[in-house]
Amino acid sequence: MIRAQLVGATGYGGLGMVELLVGHPEIELVSLLAKNDVGQPISAFFPHLSGLCDLRVEEATPERVGRDVDLVICATPDRIGMGYAPALVDAGVAVLDYSGDFRFRNAGEYERYASRQPSVAGRPHTCPELLSRAAYGIPELFRDDVAGARLVGNPGCFAVAIILALAPALQSGVIEPQSVICDGKTGISGAGKKPGALYHFPDANDNVTAYRIAAHQHAVEAMIALERWCGSASRITFVPHLVPITRGILCTTYATLSGDHTLERIHGLYQAMYAGEPFVRVLPLGVAPGVKTVAGSNLCNISLALDGENGRLIVISAIDNLLKGQAGMALQNANVMFGLPETLGLERVPVYP
Amino acid sequence: MIRAQLVGATGYGGLGMVELLVGHPEIELVSLLAKNDVGQPISAFFPHLSGLCDLRVEEATPERVGRDVDLVICATPDRIGMGYAPALVDAGVAVLDYSGDFRFRNAGEYERYASRQPSVAGRPHTCPELLSRAAYGIPELFRDDVAGARLVGNPGCFAVAIILALAPALQSGVIEPQSVICDGKTGISGAGKKPGALYHFPDANDNVTAYRIAAHQHAVEAMIALERWCGSASRITFVPHLVPITRGILCTTYATLSGDHTLERIHGLYQAMYAGEPFVRVLPLGVAPGVKTVAGSNLCNISLALDGENGRLIVISAIDNLLKGQAGMALQNANVMFGLPETLGLERVPVYP
Amino acid sequence: MIRAQLVGATGYGGLGMVELLVGHPEIELVSLLAKNDVGQPISAFFPHLSGLCDLRVEEATPERVGRDVDLVICATPDRIGMGYAPALVDAGVAVLDYSGDFRFRNAGEYERYASRQPSVAGRPHTCPELLSRAAYGIPELFRDDVAGARLVGNPGCFAVAIILALAPALQSGVIEPQSVICDGKTGISGAGKKPGALYHFPDANDNVTAYRIAAHQHAVEAMIALERWCGSASRITFVPHLVPITRGILCTTYATLSGDHTLERIHGLYQAMYAGEPFVRVLPLGVAPGVKTVAGSNLCNISLALDGENGRLIVISAIDNLLKGQAGMALQNANVMFGLPETLGLERVPVYP
Amino acid sequence: MIRAQLVGATGYGGLGMVELLVGHPEIELVSLLAKNDVGQPISAFFPHLSGLCDLRVEEATPERVGRDVDLVICATPDRIGMGYAPALVDAGVAVLDYSGDFRFRNAGEYERYASRQPSVAGRPHTCPELLSRAAYGIPELFRDDVAGARLVGNPGCFAVAIILALAPALQSGVIEPQSVICDGKTGISGAGKKPGALYHFPDANDNVTAYRIAAHQHAVEAMIALERWCGSASRITFVPHLVPITRGILCTTYATLSGDHTLERIHGLYQAMYAGEPFVRVLPLGVAPGVKTVAGSNLCNISLALDGENGRLIVISAIDNLLKGQAGMALQNANVMFGLPETLGLERVPVYP
Repeated sequence: MIRAQLVGATGYGGLGMVELLVGHPEIELVSLLAKNDVGQPISAFFPHLSGLCDLRVEEATPERVGRDVDLVICATPDRIGMGYAPALVDAGVAVLDYSGDFRFRNAGEYERYASRQPSVAGRPHTCPELLSRAAYGIPELFRDDVAGARLVGNPGCFAVAIILALAPALQSGVIEPQSVICDGKTGISGAGKKPGALYHFPDANDNVTAYRIAAHQHAVEAMIALERWCGSASRITFVPHLVPITRGILCTTYATLSGDHTLERIHGLYQAMYAGEPFVRVLPLGVAPGVKTVAGSNLCNISLALDGENGRLIVISAIDNLLKGQAGMALQNANVMFGLPETLGLERVPVYP
Repeated sequence: MIRAQLVGATGYGGLGMVELLVGHPEIELVSLLAKNDVGQPISAFFPHLSGLCDLRVEEATPERVGRDVDLVICATPDRIGMGYAPALVDAGVAVLDYSGDFRFRNAGEYERYASRQPSVAGRPHTCPELLSRAAYGIPELFRDDVAGARLVGNPGCFAVAIILALAPALQSGVIEPQSVICDGKTGISGAGKKPGALYHFPDANDNVTAYRIAAHQHAVEAMIALERWCGSASRITFVPHLVPITRGILCTTYATLSGDHTLERIHGLYQAMYAGEPFVRVLPLGVAPGVKTVAGSNLCNISLALDGENGRLIVISAIDNLLKGQAGMALQNANVMFGLPETLGLERVPVYP
Repeated sequence: MIRAQLVGATGYGGLGMVELLVGHPEIELVSLLAKNDVGQPISAFFPHLSGLCDLRVEEATPERVGRDVDLVICATPDRIGMGYAPALVDAGVAVLDYSGDFRFRNAGEYERYASRQPSVAGRPHTCPELLSRAAYGIPELFRDDVAGARLVGNPGCFAVAIILALAPALQSGVIEPQSVICDGKTGISGAGKKPGALYHFPDANDNVTAYRIAAHQHAVEAMIALERWCGSASRITFVPHLVPITRGILCTTYATLSGDHTLERIHGLYQAMYAGEPFVRVLPLGVAPGVKTVAGSNLCNISLALDGENGRLIVISAIDNLLKGQAGMALQNANVMFGLPETLGLERVPVYP
Repeated sequence: MIRAQLVGATGYGGLGMVELLVGHPEIELVSLLAKNDVGQPISAFFPHLSGLCDLRVEEATPERVGRDVDLVICATPDRIGMGYAPALVDAGVAVLDYSGDFRFRNAGEYERYASRQPSVAGRPHTCPELLSRAAYGIPELFRDDVAGARLVGNPGCFAVAIILALAPALQSGVIEPQSVICDGKTGISGAGKKPGALYHFPDANDNVTAYRIAAHQHAVEAMIALERWCGSASRITFVPHLVPITRGILCTTYATLSGDHTLERIHGLYQAMYAGEPFVRVLPLGVAPGVKTVAGSNLCNISLALDGENGRLIVISAIDNLLKGQAGMALQNANVMFGLPETLGLERVPVYP
């Protein structure tokens, strides 16, 4: 049994991991840490866990982090994990970090990302020497890296949807890599547990709003990861939107075809790349994905269409932002890191309707 | 492995059972039947099942129903199951029916129920002789009956919420059984998969409406079941309301105290009755249940409060109408009927948020 | 032209009044005051007002309140209006207050209310001598009082729905006044503009929760107002619920019939009482009101039904909590106070769907 | 008083016009016609109108259409208005049609549109000779045409949002006309009153889905109208999405800059073009529009942003699809056609929250 500790247990990201690890046959959650909200069972903050997980939440102190565990999962904001990682790595404890801290190969990439993330802009990475040892946690692209790493940066939610949508098209060269426009729609849970004016029900309900227009850090992350993977650079214009749903991301991605490629051929390329992937479904042509067909699961659905008159490929990707976009991907990474079956604890059928 | 057949596979009730039986270790879904929507894989109607369950849906003909299976689950409207049951029971095939057909002990009770159910009012039961052999499928009250039965009537969704809310109070005599008023709120999925004006998004969204005022058949069903269980009659005024949520029922039940009972004592009675029940949680005093704390699970949450000035007990019960109120309860019943662990395949943590 | 000043302009209650007074032919909004959010046009906080009302919000200082205006509308929380009212009344400025400060005839009633309102519990009224001069702002019951008053307490949103539902039944004696149970459902805007955990979209969406169980101050207010109006006391058990809609209140009220009254007779009594009322519609028998049939308007819809078996009357009332339950009622009161046509500026057709 | 008749009174489009004309000082609705749902007052179908408009709905027969009225408003699907128009125009009755029947200058344009509209594809226009006399009903672009016409084609909802977003940029030449990509999000009311699987609350709630990918007729309509207005052709890739809101359209439009234009300059061009337009608000830079800031009104909000790294302009336009996108625009056109003040009856402040 792998002993796991969760830091940042009382946010949505931590909560998702608690829900997934209740009953996981090989990973046991032995310790919950947080900055605030400590001293009570997790079920006091999240009553739906009552009787299912009543572990006490303790304060995240340096002595507690990593003690007597095999894996520390940092479900924490940017720049928390980089404080803990050096000591943990030294002590031989595996680290899985939800933030942008370990998604990049070097300080330069990190700074490019950080310049887009208002909460960390302008602050240098504190342990850049660890970046070369960190894997980017999208097993569909970097499975071997993740399997061999003791330090994994779990990807950003929009980055997952963008990357899985574009990887086959970019790798195969069927689109112009400078032409990509991605229009993202996310459920409000993507903003986390903390109430705010944009997420106040009377303001968010019956509303659709654009935000961080052409300025979201996940687009930078996606460009870096795609270049890391297929070797050539792309440029993405990305506008995220808040839509009044709790969970789910739908990204509609537009790109100019590089030549006279048929939709059938491109569909075949996507099917080939994702054949054998347990969590990516390339839908039959003509079937557009809705976020509800993946919500509650670790699946990513991908649909393809062509605007033939204008020579553009349209890729629509759908994920549950809190699962494939966060805690589910994290568990998938943990399974890969420890050599467990990749789908263990993730065999969830989407809940419909 | 128990071989199960699902009749009415393409409604929400059938769908819920498909989702639950994907991966169930002891019950295998071998056959999907329906009246319409036949000839294609179930995943063609419900794309979220793609790759998870691609069984073909076949037409429900008399020859097919019950063939080579141990259990037939009729996820069908009233009066379908009663057509199949006699032959199935004769053939030794177990039957679990979602409708009102087998929820009652005799023709008189059935007629009392049917008089409130517009689709069947005035039509006699076609196999009343089977009613005495049918169990009412709420294991929390009738576990031994269900365990010994080959024919089980799965309860109505509102009936579940009302019965679990009232059983301890009625049995212990702390409330006046003639004084019960129950105000129900249900998600729109309770109306099923078929579109209609009341369930059209623009009409249902941002709306709350009462319907079937003091005329819903589930209140009659609850009264009959509670009398069957504790021996004395109660009277319930029940008004259901549609609220713009997909899943969930919240029932707020009001009853006059029969004497000077403290809330603590009543809370103790509820805890005692439901101690050991895997799917009923009596919440600590002061915690009001929301439907989100049970949605996506087979749990029922119960909260208690007193209006001390007016001598009234207030019980609030919450369930997922499609799980504890339908498919989840059905699987719980199937587990009990076949001597399996009652929670098998139902260990789902509610998904939050 | 009546010159009006709005104190508390940047909350939902103040905002509602701004929206209503844009274009009002007889009342001109000349000044907007607030505690926070000052120094910018109201349209900077509420961009939908851009170009329609760009009045600057100023700090609510004692010198500004009431200066050069005929009417001060305090869209403020409890205990703000009572600070301003004495000086304003002395100066001959009319006062319309949204809080509980002037809804009662004497200090005893106020204390009964305040004991239920956590934010003010235990604190005495600071100008009880003004209470006898204050009118309770429901013109349907107290039109003459309002017309003659310079100080009006605008009613609580749930109180409006409860009072209009019960007034005819209590006055005519067709129900037992001790038997009333009221189950309220409110949109999230009823909690105001300030974000909080219960109103955070991911928590509120797809959820229904009870709160302030048998402890809401609006039930006390309704009992006091109904006794003030018809002379005899009633007792009301009231449980409010949050439902995931932006606007609207639906109250389902249950009461035991005092005798063998027919539904037709009771319907006639309701029609008679509300005949000529421009904002109350008694619906034909058989038509249940949804909140959407009144949202966006100052209307209150009332439906009646009987549970004949149990001898209970069921009254369902629906209002827009921010209009008939707040700003709309306030403007109706202002029109009455100044002898204007009662419907001026309130001729809004509900927006459907 | 202008006497108006409404054909297709019981759909959402007709309903919107009824709501607007209640109380309009210069246009009186004298007759409601429909194909189905006839023989009862409109308030029997739409109870929120009870007491506000109780006109009886009559069957739309050839004898009734246009009798004793100055204006016939066809709130009808494609190919209904073209049946009535020739006789009405001959008789000197003004015609305002909601469908695609009169949005084009000639049969060729109509056929280009019709080929994208499945319900009419392949069927020729039955009175192409009237097309040259029909105005396209966007007063912001074609005010003089509308003022001089007796036959006006009211625009499609998405077309309005696309056209108002693009007109200044295309006219001024700051974007490449072949590079336009428009990602549309619409509330479910855009699909009309008729229930269907995609609009069933349990399916639509908490969902986002793309549909008619690169195949929606409103994109063709927008291209034709923009060329008609500024003389040069553009090409638009358009993907509409259903989002779970009742009302509202948000279009996010991306286009490649034709040169080194600053955002400030482009913002100035937009402000200049729409200066004096009562229903178009160009928001300050940095303010992104949400659909809630226009819902319930006839306003269109427009925001501008640049993706400087990639040389793209981003225009976000928001309208209420049932008002500025349908009935509100229709009334605006009617006011212009009859020489009334353009804003008459449309002075509605958006309702917020």
